[in-house]
Amino acid sequence: MPFVSAEELTEIAENALAAHGVPVDEARVVARSLVASNLAGHDSHGVMRLPQYLEAIRAESVVPGAPIEVIRETPSTAVLDAHWGFGQVAATRAAEIAVAKAEACSLAGVAVHNSTHIGRLGEYVEIAAARGMVGMLFVNGHGGAHNTVPWGGADARLCTNPLACAIPTGDAPIVIDISTSAVAEGKVRTYRIQGKPVPEGWIVDSDGNPTRDPNVLYQQPPGSLLPLGGNVGYKGFALGLMVDVLAGALSGAGCSSPDARRGGNAFTFLAIDPRAFCGRDEFAAFAASLISWVKSARLAPGAREILVPGEVERREAERRQKEGIPVPDEVWEQLTRLRSPAPTQTSGTRA
Amino acid sequence: MPFVSAEELTEIAENALAAHGVPVDEARVVARSLVASNLAGHDSHGVMRLPQYLEAIRAESVVPGAPIEVIRETPSTAVLDAHWGFGQVAATRAAEIAVAKAEACSLAGVAVHNSTHIGRLGEYVEIAAARGMVGMLFVNGHGGAHNTVPWGGADARLCTNPLACAIPTGDAPIVIDISTSAVAEGKVRTYRIQGKPVPEGWIVDSDGNPTRDPNVLYQQPPGSLLPLGGNVGYKGFALGLMVDVLAGALSGAGCSSPDARRGGNAFTFLAIDPRAFCGRDEFAAFAASLISWVKSARLAPGAREILVPGEVERREAERRQKEGIPVPDEVWEQLTRLRSPAPTQTSGTRA
Repeated sequence: MPFVSAEELTEIAENALAAHGVPVDEARVVARSLVASNLAGHDSHGVMRLPQYLEAIRAESVVPGAPIEVIRETPSTAVLDAHWGFGQVAATRAAEIAVAKAEACSLAGVAVHNSTHIGRLGEYVEIAAARGMVGMLFVNGHGGAHNTVPWGGADARLCTNPLACAIPTGDAPIVIDISTSAVAEGKVRTYRIQGKPVPEGWIVDSDGNPTRDPNVLYQQPPGSLLPLGGNVGYKGFALGLMVDVLAGALSGAGCSSPDARRGGNAFTFLAIDPRAFCGRDEFAAFAASLISWVKSARLAPGAREILVPGEVERREAERRQKEGIPVPDEVWEQLTRLRSPAPTQTSGTRA
Repeated sequence: MPFVSAEELTEIAENALAAHGVPVDEARVVARSLVASNLAGHDSHGVMRLPQYLEAIRAESVVPGAPIEVIRETPSTAVLDAHWGFGQVAATRAAEIAVAKAEACSLAGVAVHNSTHIGRLGEYVEIAAARGMVGMLFVNGHGGAHNTVPWGGADARLCTNPLACAIPTGDAPIVIDISTSAVAEGKVRTYRIQGKPVPEGWIVDSDGNPTRDPNVLYQQPPGSLLPLGGNVGYKGFALGLMVDVLAGALSGAGCSSPDARRGGNAFTFLAIDPRAFCGRDEFAAFAASLISWVKSARLAPGAREILVPGEVERREAERRQKEGIPVPDEVWEQLTRLRSPAPTQTSGTRA
């Protein structure tokens, strides 16, 4: 399996997108976003998706160069119609607008509909944290992509409805990026590929019976994910509803419903400027102290370290910046085929 | 056990507080808040707390009539110093200010420090929902009251750090009110009183070992609560950090730390006006449709009904408004003793 530098992967992705009619600035945003997922260790959201993206362009399910239209605006808010352009472009724009508005209004909210999938949420809230603000992001499946049961239910009614929040600390931010289902679907797929049973409390079969067999999610009729919380899963269900409404209703895309016409993401980005409250420096100092305090706890038996959200991804990114990103052979083959006319060249290979 | 009307309990509480030097308008807010908890079925936050409140007044740990000082303000934000007055009064004021500011600015945030305990969170976010807005509330233990371990830790470092969110639906609102620990401490106490083991994933002993023995939380050295999430408790830990920072840092009270000087709550209230986004009526209609959709799922084996957050409490309140609030004999004795010079009189008695 080759180890490829982030720069090389970004260039491959950017060029391939541009060759498929994606405007250069958009191609750059999408390519960087894909590679940022690889750097963070979330390879399932990384460059392995590129062939699928190019196919989506051909199938016209994503619209390169689609205008991001501001359909409603106040000094502190905006509603955007992304016209089914790349989700990464729309989410980046939403974050930038929210941060600019919060700069003036202390709090700002930008809601987006008609966006394709935005990928890893953490990336966008980090835009706010880099400016000393809190960024919060609530995302639904644009009303569709139901794979999670309500608490007590046997049929999927919600998407995994993730939320993200980045908190500036003066140093690296705290970056929270979690689904409100017990886990994202990809985690179950990983267990399935490894032929291992999933932990308890993650999934139910198509009749709502708890199971540890990951295959049930991929049978007909399919099983579903459970909401976050294990035996108090009503809490995850509550959070899933909250995210669905903040993302789907505020944006006008719609909450989860049987009528969703098209896959994608609807989302709402909130930015909060601590300047209007305790002050930016004080805020970051409070957050930094909190990190020291939680890390000062003795370890539980079997635990190796107390990690704050975002820390694993940051360490992995540092390592992969140095050592390169491991790209499975079949993915690398696909990528190099995209890279004509330049010759195939890897940055290094490791067993 | 007597069943007492909400009106009678409110009057008893209001008069007792007033007799202890609490200004009449504050006494009314606190009394109504206590009885609202009883109505919702959360008796542990209800009138049984009244003797404790009166003792707190005598001990000067709560300051009746304390000014709620606006120490920083912008059109969309405020920071309040509650000067250790009643938390219910400060939280109600924060909600009202946030709603008024969101009316003008679409989004608003009000952060409060130096408040005593605010009780049931749901009550305050409902103030926003009653005005067609989303209300969100993030609460920490004013930096103290550590009873929850970080993920992987053996020592308590966070409070239960609850969050609440109310969503208008045109009919009764969705009211989310959850701790970011697996459960609130009171739930473990209930199992202990009943002599039953708690479900898995709720608590650890003082060395961080998972246990189902509720007694460990009350021994020396004490055990701790686990974060929400069971085998994915890093998610509850992430939410707990988010709440701690939004509540403790924005308000200036401080996040969880070894230096907390005094018990109480710090909190931040966010109000979001859907008018600036999809519109208030459309927003409520989206939320109402979501409720119908999740309720349309078949039931999982063993489940009796799919309930949305706030529904259990609302039903209980309707029942108790009709049938009266059950008050344990020893609590009722305490309350009637407070009610001199009027004679003791119950609204009815039921086996």
